[in-house]
Amino acid sequence: MPMRAFIRLALLTLAVLRPAAHAEDGYDLWLRYRPVQGDLLTAYRAAATEIVPPGTSSPTSAIVSTELSRGLGGLLGSAAPPAVPAPTRDGSIVFGTPVSSPLIARLHLNLKGLGDDGYVIRSASFAGHHITVIAAPHDVGVLYGAFHFLRLLQTHRPLEPLELSSAPRIRHRVLDHWDNLDRTIERGYAGESIWDWQKLPDYLDPRYTDYARACASVGINGTVLNNVNASAISLTPPYLRKLAALADVFRPYGLHVYLSARFSAPIEIGGLKTADPLDPAVRAWWRAKSDEIYTLIPDFGGFLVKANSEGQPGPQDYSRTHADGANMLADAVAPHGGIVMWRAFVYSQEQPDDRAKQAYDEFVPLDGKFRDNVILQVKNGPIDFQPREPFHPLFGAMPRTPLMLEVQITKEYLGMATHLVYLGPLFEETLRADTYARGKGSSVAKVTDGSLFGHPRTGIAGVANIGSDRDWTGSHFNQANWYVFGRLAWDPLQSSRDIADEWVRMTFSNDPAFVAPVVGMMMSSREAAVDYMTPLGLAHQMARTTHYGPGPWVSGGPRADWTSVYFNRADAQGIGFDRTATGSNAVVQYAPPVAAKFTDLKRIPDNLLLWFHHLPWDYKMRSGHTLWDELVIHYSDGVRTVGDMRRTWASLAGKIDSHRYAQVSTFLEIQEKEARWWRDASIAYFQTFSHQPLPAGFSPPEHDLHYYETLCFPYVPGHSPLPGEKCQ
Amino acid sequence: MPMRAFIRLALLTLAVLRPAAHAEDGYDLWLRYRPVQGDLLTAYRAAATEIVPPGTSSPTSAIVSTELSRGLGGLLGSAAPPAVPAPTRDGSIVFGTPVSSPLIARLHLNLKGLGDDGYVIRSASFAGHHITVIAAPHDVGVLYGAFHFLRLLQTHRPLEPLELSSAPRIRHRVLDHWDNLDRTIERGYAGESIWDWQKLPDYLDPRYTDYARACASVGINGTVLNNVNASAISLTPPYLRKLAALADVFRPYGLHVYLSARFSAPIEIGGLKTADPLDPAVRAWWRAKSDEIYTLIPDFGGFLVKANSEGQPGPQDYSRTHADGANMLADAVAPHGGIVMWRAFVYSQEQPDDRAKQAYDEFVPLDGKFRDNVILQVKNGPIDFQPREPFHPLFGAMPRTPLMLEVQITKEYLGMATHLVYLGPLFEETLRADTYARGKGSSVAKVTDGSLFGHPRTGIAGVANIGSDRDWTGSHFNQANWYVFGRLAWDPLQSSRDIADEWVRMTFSNDPAFVAPVVGMMMSSREAAVDYMTPLGLAHQMARTTHYGPGPWVSGGPRADWTSVYFNRADAQGIGFDRTATGSNAVVQYAPPVAAKFTDLKRIPDNLLLWFHHLPWDYKMRSGHTLWDELVIHYSDGVRTVGDMRRTWASLAGKIDSHRYAQVSTFLEIQEKEARWWRDASIAYFQTFSHQPLPAGFSPPEHDLHYYETLCFPYVPGHSPLPGEKCQ
Repeated sequence: MPMRAFIRLALLTLAVLRPAAHAEDGYDLWLRYRPVQGDLLTAYRAAATEIVPPGTSSPTSAIVSTELSRGLGGLLGSAAPPAVPAPTRDGSIVFGTPVSSPLIARLHLNLKGLGDDGYVIRSASFAGHHITVIAAPHDVGVLYGAFHFLRLLQTHRPLEPLELSSAPRIRHRVLDHWDNLDRTIERGYAGESIWDWQKLPDYLDPRYTDYARACASVGINGTVLNNVNASAISLTPPYLRKLAALADVFRPYGLHVYLSARFSAPIEIGGLKTADPLDPAVRAWWRAKSDEIYTLIPDFGGFLVKANSEGQPGPQDYSRTHADGANMLADAVAPHGGIVMWRAFVYSQEQPDDRAKQAYDEFVPLDGKFRDNVILQVKNGPIDFQPREPFHPLFGAMPRTPLMLEVQITKEYLGMATHLVYLGPLFEETLRADTYARGKGSSVAKVTDGSLFGHPRTGIAGVANIGSDRDWTGSHFNQANWYVFGRLAWDPLQSSRDIADEWVRMTFSNDPAFVAPVVGMMMSSREAAVDYMTPLGLAHQMARTTHYGPGPWVSGGPRADWTSVYFNRADAQGIGFDRTATGSNAVVQYAPPVAAKFTDLKRIPDNLLLWFHHLPWDYKMRSGHTLWDELVIHYSDGVRTVGDMRRTWASLAGKIDSHRYAQVSTFLEIQEKEARWWRDASIAYFQTFSHQPLPAGFSPPEHDLHYYETLCFPYVPGHSPLPGEKCQ
Repeated sequence: MPMRAFIRLALLTLAVLRPAAHAEDGYDLWLRYRPVQGDLLTAYRAAATEIVPPGTSSPTSAIVSTELSRGLGGLLGSAAPPAVPAPTRDGSIVFGTPVSSPLIARLHLNLKGLGDDGYVIRSASFAGHHITVIAAPHDVGVLYGAFHFLRLLQTHRPLEPLELSSAPRIRHRVLDHWDNLDRTIERGYAGESIWDWQKLPDYLDPRYTDYARACASVGINGTVLNNVNASAISLTPPYLRKLAALADVFRPYGLHVYLSARFSAPIEIGGLKTADPLDPAVRAWWRAKSDEIYTLIPDFGGFLVKANSEGQPGPQDYSRTHADGANMLADAVAPHGGIVMWRAFVYSQEQPDDRAKQAYDEFVPLDGKFRDNVILQVKNGPIDFQPREPFHPLFGAMPRTPLMLEVQITKEYLGMATHLVYLGPLFEETLRADTYARGKGSSVAKVTDGSLFGHPRTGIAGVANIGSDRDWTGSHFNQANWYVFGRLAWDPLQSSRDIADEWVRMTFSNDPAFVAPVVGMMMSSREAAVDYMTPLGLAHQMARTTHYGPGPWVSGGPRADWTSVYFNRADAQGIGFDRTATGSNAVVQYAPPVAAKFTDLKRIPDNLLLWFHHLPWDYKMRSGHTLWDELVIHYSDGVRTVGDMRRTWASLAGKIDSHRYAQVSTFLEIQEKEARWWRDASIAYFQTFSHQPLPAGFSPPEHDLHYYETLCFPYVPGHSPLPGEKCQ
């Protein structure tokens, strides 16, 4: 037998012999509660001897009891601490609200400023016993506090004395599911939608409960269940009954349901001739529809709307403004306390101007014209969830309108299921970006959390990466992106590195020899993806439609601003999109200090250079390299970093379970292969313009350009297959 | 709080408190290996003290070792018996082939007549020890034997003395996956395809191994991985590499991969101008393609082809016959030992004749014209996997051509995911049907197993019900249909009741108080579905396209033979399809004794009456009822039987785990609701023709006909959603 065949046989034999009984398959996410060892175990057992639930129970407090029992039972490697009506010894865990628990009422804790969702975790004395109190003004705050308390043990933090207080800086912390009613998911890479509409409202898959629990564990309190490219059918009575069944499951976890509303629903399911937002019949239809929804779901969150964008219907079909449309819906849900999240992601096919400018141009004139219960949902950057974009110029530019940040957790443009790309640094970069709207320190975070302009209505949305895959998110490391979204939504000023650290500890291991290198991999991963896909401020160079793999040559088709050449503008002279005064002048949409910095070639950071400037191939970079050489170096750095990640992971064999270890190993191999593909294809294409050799020591692309241009992937997950199954 | 809300709250609280850690979620199928108790445990421990693997290992024998360890470790509730090189005491389990195990060679067992896949399980003496031997001519037979041995313990059978010998009566035991490359499944109700083509060939999901193991455990040895409505892309090099990776995983389990071949592939991916099977370039293309496949997959099974059927391309596009097309492909794979499974499911849009007759008319003239390595794949009945059809008239009508039976395991027409319908009785009814082709006793089973006409090439295919759902098949009871298909494929003369009995024991419990009533439910379930959907020989009354729910009023559209009215022929005079000499005369396609019986109103069984006869509403049935009354009684009986099933299940609470118990309970509620919907809608429709009241004591339909006709379900799983999302 040849050696290669022998190795294959041996590997297959090993694969066959793997232990099959309930492997670590990722289903438990970061809520694994595996036993603590050694001194820490002794200390934790002493600090958690019994649980004291509130005297008055509720579905939410029952969940808290269950979660503490499950968590402590797991972490302490023993039977869960007993539930008792009042502390009987040191180590009691007392939880509740001043209303539900007379015991907590007697402690006279200061719960001011905690809002609807905040909580305290306090070491205290009661009848001579050292106890821990998890208290909040409302039940759901207690639940959030309980997850925080368990997280302390999961991450091996000291438990005493505890003097913690936490409240979210953002009110609406929402997942947007781009899930279609047929269970396909637009830009989903983790299987099909977890919403099994066919069997709802009768069958409540236990997974719905597990989903709500996971959301609550990181503070997410809203979920939009259907795609922004919405079907009106989700608003019909049978589907509202299905939605209500889910809302009933989610309610005790503090999770509110929302719907994407199709603007033309009054025509499609209402039998009206128009969806004009100023038409009385249309307004009445939406009011009645809202009443119908709130009858079924009293805590319904409201509507998310994508209107007059990428072919979706909207108020402009009737010569009305986005404000007219949003306000009409806002009026319909206002009596019930609902909100409207109106997306600013608009660009017009007919509009010849720079796509990056259009949302600003459309919405800034509408500032101050929206109802109080409208929030404008603005993507982190002005194009579309690219590996790197500058912050969206709308942030800071609409002081009289609450803006909610929208980020994409699913990795449409960042390697889909398999690439290990931790998005914490991307989210953090946006949140910390300074708009200078009110001078230095006017960060996107302060726009989002309402503090900059004094808006009480605040929100943040993440496009979910959740599907029916057993691990929920298509890979074990993609779970970190769900996690970091929730944690940053709670407090946008946290460090993404700290969050990565706690996620690794909860999800994999507290072994420092594992945590440090893995956090290092995660923290370098996003920049690696930028480098191997779109370095130096390039954007939108992905293959057409599917967005899988490189496609810098993509041109033609229905619209210029869906092509790569529109964005890279590569030609014999150079590369990059001139958005300064000599070009589209998009840069003036930013506050003057920001615009000046982006305009000034001496001050603009390298990583946004080609976003704002078209520069010659021999442009001299700060590094001393020419632009062409610098591009090649960045592409190559991206590949090298992924190789480093793969080698780091290889060095960690045996430190975690074999099941998850093996999947990550294979995915890193795929990522390295695809990073090289990105580098080689991009270099091969741009070299046809630069006409320059690669810098010394850099290997040429493995294949010629034609090879890359003709690769065909008709069945990429997350996009609807095209009729005829041809590559474009 | 109102009582209703209180109950809802209490139920939700209970739901929250359910134990969440690795519930019985169905993933383990019938291979659960839960501990045996009591005296039986003592006996089993004594009979399985150690395992003696063969001296020469192979991937398959390693699997046998693992399976025996896992199975015995689980069943005996202790560490798995140790592996030893030779028996050291009573209770040794020795396995292998005479070649791999010198020990087995020395026992001189008679392994003649076991073929490629058979095995023996024998109690024997060795060096003074009582041992059990699992031996076979080939490795895979040993694997089948090991599963059989474990099944004895799982079903609490006595272990000694064992004198078992088993060999399959059918050679190709194949699952047909109607899985598309985008992971949708045509007529799939258990999630998306388990084949994750995007990550293949790199990532080998452990589920692939678990799938192959489950197939092997019931003797399935072939799998067609893609939809019969095939994409040519599955034949391109990237997809063949993916296929090869799966074949490598499946090989040690004795599972061969096949592909559905798109007949026009030479044009679509080969760059040819024609797919004419007599064109030398086309023939050369398929030969080269086959060579390419066999280079990657030396044990590739061959092609399955749906040609000139429902819009698929085929040889008739070039005025060639099905034999021309099949033989061309057969010649391409013959040098490698491959086969072609050519589907007889054809009916032409242009053909005005009774759809039930067309396959016979097209294929009987071709008898004797096919290559040796072609098998004609014939559905159980002449229409399309209906709840009940007579056996297909091709069985027995093509003595010179091997015919393989095709059944549908996925419940396209039988309640999809949620209805509990055990298909064993349906498969058994077909297999035992007597074609009279060589006189009495010429059963479909004997046609299929080759014994009637002496064909060595035999096969049976089941359209799989497997998907990404955690329980594999969309419900716990649907697993039984995968199971019974495999068991009947091995031996088509087995009793479906016996198989249900062993499945219940392996899957749920050996408690006689559970087994008997559940087997009873299963055995009555298929007749219940016939009754509430299509009693007395009716067929194809389902809603258009989706086939979800009743649609006896469906008419119009692109073709008559896709409508319900075509099949029910209800009018003021009566109901039923006259297929006697006064009608389409399809009955003459059966052997004279069968045709005579079906023609004779005195002898035809009630359950096929309206398949062959159009009869007046007041036709007097054997029961003494009029046809109309009898119809109503049958519809009502179906609903009542489901109610009985639900009540039986309710009486079994506590006898199995709560997780599976609860899902089955809910699904039975859905089934009862939908059974009533079927009954009411059907009666409401047919009553517009019969103009007769319901018999005394039978409740009228809950709604009027208009209500049922206008129900709209645009997103039924298993069919591609229509553009525009409208109901038809």
